[in-house]
Amino acid sequence: MTHLILGGARSGKSRYAEQLAGENGLDVIYVATATMGDQEMIERITRHRADRPAGWRTIEEPLALAATLQRHAAPGHCLLVDCLTLWLSNLLQAGDTTLDQERERLQEALPHLPGRILLVSNEVGLGIVPDNPLARRFRDEAGRLNQALAAACEHVTFVAAGLPMQLK
Amino acid sequence: MTHLILGGARSGKSRYAEQLAGENGLDVIYVATATMGDQEMIERITRHRADRPAGWRTIEEPLALAATLQRHAAPGHCLLVDCLTLWLSNLLQAGDTTLDQERERLQEALPHLPGRILLVSNEVGLGIVPDNPLARRFRDEAGRLNQALAAACEHVTFVAAGLPMQLK
Amino acid sequence: MTHLILGGARSGKSRYAEQLAGENGLDVIYVATATMGDQEMIERITRHRADRPAGWRTIEEPLALAATLQRHAAPGHCLLVDCLTLWLSNLLQAGDTTLDQERERLQEALPHLPGRILLVSNEVGLGIVPDNPLARRFRDEAGRLNQALAAACEHVTFVAAGLPMQLK
Repeated sequence: MTHLILGGARSGKSRYAEQLAGENGLDVIYVATATMGDQEMIERITRHRADRPAGWRTIEEPLALAATLQRHAAPGHCLLVDCLTLWLSNLLQAGDTTLDQERERLQEALPHLPGRILLVSNEVGLGIVPDNPLARRFRDEAGRLNQALAAACEHVTFVAAGLPMQLK
Repeated sequence: MTHLILGGARSGKSRYAEQLAGENGLDVIYVATATMGDQEMIERITRHRADRPAGWRTIEEPLALAATLQRHAAPGHCLLVDCLTLWLSNLLQAGDTTLDQERERLQEALPHLPGRILLVSNEVGLGIVPDNPLARRFRDEAGRLNQALAAACEHVTFVAAGLPMQLK
Repeated sequence: MTHLILGGARSGKSRYAEQLAGENGLDVIYVATATMGDQEMIERITRHRADRPAGWRTIEEPLALAATLQRHAAPGHCLLVDCLTLWLSNLLQAGDTTLDQERERLQEALPHLPGRILLVSNEVGLGIVPDNPLARRFRDEAGRLNQALAAACEHVTFVAAGLPMQLK
């Protein structure tokens, strides 16, 4: 069962996904796409990690997400990927070939993965058009990725102020 | 029947509107508000146009939208306007007199148009307050325009990640 | 009865809250968190005030919101706070001690207030990540505040283009 959880910054989307992950007594594997790049990110990662149950395993995978999901997905497992927006950002830094390849691999892999798959992603396209061309590119790619994943997933939820709206 | 389709950048709002337009075997006229101003816009317009069915007519109208809709609306026709945010941007460049006049004309015309009218518009007010006063002005005007059109239209849909939420 | 009304800039959230406030013949007290800081704000405040019914009382409270609500809340009263995002901005300028204290006071006070309490707040986390660290801090704090208040309130509504979606 694949489930995409969308929301803004500090919308409670990660917490909502973590609640879903913990619900059914599944064996939870947390797939972190963040890399320990800068101080602000390290603080966020550390704070997030402290909030997660002790029994969860954490895997760090900044790029090869499809392969990681294929390796660990299994009946009775819940893979929680947090978050796809950071993964997209990592792919954009890695270059267009990697981006196209990894994105395509994820879309192809999703419908065939056993167990429960929870994907957390940011909605970033509801503000004013950014001045910066790179930010515009990122916004466009993030929107397209969310559309593609929403089409591929069985369930889609939009979280605002910690409260879920079911879109699919 | 008037229908406003709102959404963020790359939210799938245009594609959703195009699906609705193609549904009932109506004669579709695509009303483009974009002008061929810069390279980035030309690429977007060209890419969008290639996605549309061959049988659709395209009209370009950057400013006098109400008059264009009144000229072409007819029973059995579907007018698809994409998008109102770009039209607002064109009006703001044309000056306050044109802006007030054209906005009022559209609001007055909408309830009386025959056939099907689909209006695509961007939601731009859900990010941080922009530093730039012009961007703040645009954001305010876009929000007011969306409110006015939502009040005037029979149906309103919010699209996120390609999925529709009915607001009205 | 506590009710949080969320929405973007110019989304119609204030107007929606004002409609709710005027509905039941309650004695309405409008709690403005804005301070007459700059010209743009003065114009907004003046325009907003002109739109409100003559019978409503207005109280200005930039910081000590919980104490103000506790002083004026009563059966038969409706307190309309517009808006919490400006209050948060005032608190951030006042420093972290005031911020933590006042935020905690509000969360503790809310479930015990008599009468009707309407809180208007901005959703600011659905755009691209801001370059400016202060803007990122504000966005994070605003998101956390909205989550905390949504958890504490009995009803939560998200307003887009003047149209309400019930989240809780």
